[in-house]
Amino acid sequence: MSEGVEWALHSILNLAWAGPEHAVSAARLAAYYDLPPAYLNKQLQALVRAGLVSSGSGPRGGFRLARRLEDITLMDVVAAVEGPEEAFRCAGIRLRAPRGRPHEDGPVPEPAEDCQIHQAMREAELVWRRELAGRTLADVRDRVERVSPGVPRRARRWFAAARTTS
Amino acid sequence: MSEGVEWALHSILNLAWAGPEHAVSAARLAAYYDLPPAYLNKQLQALVRAGLVSSGSGPRGGFRLARRLEDITLMDVVAAVEGPEEAFRCAGIRLRAPRGRPHEDGPVPEPAEDCQIHQAMREAELVWRRELAGRTLADVRDRVERVSPGVPRRARRWFAAARTTS
Repeated sequence: MSEGVEWALHSILNLAWAGPEHAVSAARLAAYYDLPPAYLNKQLQALVRAGLVSSGSGPRGGFRLARRLEDITLMDVVAAVEGPEEAFRCAGIRLRAPRGRPHEDGPVPEPAEDCQIHQAMREAELVWRRELAGRTLADVRDRVERVSPGVPRRARRWFAAARTTS
Repeated sequence: MSEGVEWALHSILNLAWAGPEHAVSAARLAAYYDLPPAYLNKQLQALVRAGLVSSGSGPRGGFRLARRLEDITLMDVVAAVEGPEEAFRCAGIRLRAPRGRPHEDGPVPEPAEDCQIHQAMREAELVWRRELAGRTLADVRDRVERVSPGVPRRARRWFAAARTTS
């Protein structure tokens, strides 16, 4: 999984703490963690394409949450940033195996979808995806606010200061 | 996940079908799927280090299973090839956030281990790992032998032919 997932998850929480009424630029979101703005912008655009975040241009432009944190799951963010590919990469090497003797060995290898290795790996991965889909960013926010109440306060103040100075 | 996981899983099944009494060279295992032998050898060495496969040198050398398929899980193979790293990469960017005002915001950010995003991602991933650890290569072999009985037969014959001609 790319580092973009970590960046996107933290940025979504920061957008929530900055407040839904305020748009925040990619540069400002990046500055909070000292990240490269152009690369963070790429992740933010992926979140926009996935409908998790909206973007506006102009002097008051920037990024805002397009959904409530209750409606954004960890799976939404992973899928937005990483794409729909499975973690297990199946190149279907099985289809390159030597062909047998048709009458003794039955039909030639079936399509990769029927590969039992692929299926077993996919079944395990689906359990993971279901788990990610069962956790919302609101759950994570609530945990942060309970365990480290200074973190949201600090973020809120920092992004508010950006608005008055820029 | 690298393509090496797919290669390693198939090669382990092929070693089982070739028979525990016969060592198979990396070149021969690679030829079965037309894979680059040096790169497959790298994966096989990782399986040796993990204790899943044993290797011997000399004219009768090669690779054999070091455990029964009942004692090799999907997790064993993923960990051997991919290493112990979590799929979710946490670079701890959270620790680079601006420091707050100590009296108002509480202590500075805690170590990355306490990051709620990291914890939520890790919890979901542990469910996946438990799932992988609950499936053995014997389960996969049984499914292949039931669904595609020609596949094991073909592999067994092909690796046996290699022994008589080399």
